[in-house]
Amino acid sequence: MFERLGLIGCGLMGGSFALALRRAGLVRHIAGFSASPSTTQRALELGVIDTQAGSAAEAAAGADLVLVAVPVAATETTFAAIGATLGADTLLMDVGSTKRDVVAAAERALGGALPCFVPAHPIAGKERAGVDHADAALYQGRHVILTPMATSGASQLAKAQAVWTALGARLVEMTPAAHDTTFAAVSHLPHLVAFAFIDGIARQPDGQAILALGGPGFRDFTRIAAADPRMWRDIFLANRQELLAQLRAHQQALAQFEQQIVAGDGAALEQLIAQASGIRAAWHMDSFKPGT
Amino acid sequence: MFERLGLIGCGLMGGSFALALRRAGLVRHIAGFSASPSTTQRALELGVIDTQAGSAAEAAAGADLVLVAVPVAATETTFAAIGATLGADTLLMDVGSTKRDVVAAAERALGGALPCFVPAHPIAGKERAGVDHADAALYQGRHVILTPMATSGASQLAKAQAVWTALGARLVEMTPAAHDTTFAAVSHLPHLVAFAFIDGIARQPDGQAILALGGPGFRDFTRIAAADPRMWRDIFLANRQELLAQLRAHQQALAQFEQQIVAGDGAALEQLIAQASGIRAAWHMDSFKPGT
Repeated sequence: MFERLGLIGCGLMGGSFALALRRAGLVRHIAGFSASPSTTQRALELGVIDTQAGSAAEAAAGADLVLVAVPVAATETTFAAIGATLGADTLLMDVGSTKRDVVAAAERALGGALPCFVPAHPIAGKERAGVDHADAALYQGRHVILTPMATSGASQLAKAQAVWTALGARLVEMTPAAHDTTFAAVSHLPHLVAFAFIDGIARQPDGQAILALGGPGFRDFTRIAAADPRMWRDIFLANRQELLAQLRAHQQALAQFEQQIVAGDGAALEQLIAQASGIRAAWHMDSFKPGT
Repeated sequence: MFERLGLIGCGLMGGSFALALRRAGLVRHIAGFSASPSTTQRALELGVIDTQAGSAAEAAAGADLVLVAVPVAATETTFAAIGATLGADTLLMDVGSTKRDVVAAAERALGGALPCFVPAHPIAGKERAGVDHADAALYQGRHVILTPMATSGASQLAKAQAVWTALGARLVEMTPAAHDTTFAAVSHLPHLVAFAFIDGIARQPDGQAILALGGPGFRDFTRIAAADPRMWRDIFLANRQELLAQLRAHQQALAQFEQQIVAGDGAALEQLIAQASGIRAAWHMDSFKPGT
């Protein structure tokens, strides 16, 4: 389907996309670039890419598919570096966890190449980042959110839909704003809460001894608190408006629980818990149906 | 080691204890009682118990080991029902998630049998409760907290230590107060936060559609929100003082994150995240060392 993938950012997300595309027989050649030369070198050694590009622009030049899989904060610089090299039919996608900021960056930096761009966010990841953990099956069966812009080319959108579908992903389309609200709620806020939860215990005098007694519930609840600090700093700041709105909704729910505990109102407390418990017991991952 | 186990409450925790004790060859006969006759009947069918007792007192009579594995709120009634039947050398334990309330209940209800009682809290469980999920390996390698009372008999304490050790558990001794602080932090607060998190999203206009897009991080972070409403209502109320103190510490940590996000202070935000991330990345379950 594609002659040449220009992969900018050869980490877990980008590397997994390259491996999946190759395994599906959908690309002839993969040129890769990472800001860190050792990452690009390692991607070559692992067979994730075929050739090392010396810059983002060099990776993008002549490619009919370009994937930008860099930290959110580096997106605009990358767009500015590659905009002039993109062909009219090239499909450009990102994999960022926030979308309104990426759309704004594209509008500022891509110039005449704006029709090439279809913003994408695959809902997939691993606890351990880096190209060494890249996995051709990472996107299999997982949601991929596309937030097409009014400027996105029709052929680019069709190709974006086709390529993710061919990789076994489940496509969901929404506006950048709806995306940012949704993931502020189900991803960014849980990370914020998990970080704050650990910090709130750690600063207590017996914090270390207390943490050492966490069991299986603690383990799962806090797993995401081990995530990368710079990545999450950038996500929190990039989506701060929606994140703060979700945080306020959560704080209100917490205050409601607190109020019933202080009042010793067992019936009201049980009702609050039962609502959450019923919803969570019925929840299944990857169950989104368009229109729900 | 024991002639007769009186098992009061034949659910997941009690049933698993019975199976483990039997597998280790540490008991000759197990008499069981549950408030629900169908549970006692099922425990008999599954070979968890040898005979059905008609009441808690009947299960405890003549037993040299009695395990009370009932909901926290039913502990005092159970103690009152069995106190007079306990022999001087009998070991009585519970498995409750809170300890100061259980100690107070024992002091009020056990009378002359108080020396029999060694409060216990095994840090183990499963997502699905009930005797059908009882598992002889549930306590293998897991922490069991003992909070001996000044009144606990020396021989009872020695037997309690010996039996959990023989089942492969890792013993930790602490005061009831230290226990309740610790588990308010690492168990009760995470449940409260997870419940409130789900409720806070569910009440939003698009709550259901938002929840449907949760990924692996959401799945793990919210797993404990599917827990049993009555059990957690009782735990929250039984340990409310410590839980509210931990909630306040958490709310302060959340407010600190909020402040840095509002200020757009990336360096301070990264530092808060890095502290949590470093602690959680180094954390391992069942790593408690006495004296840490």
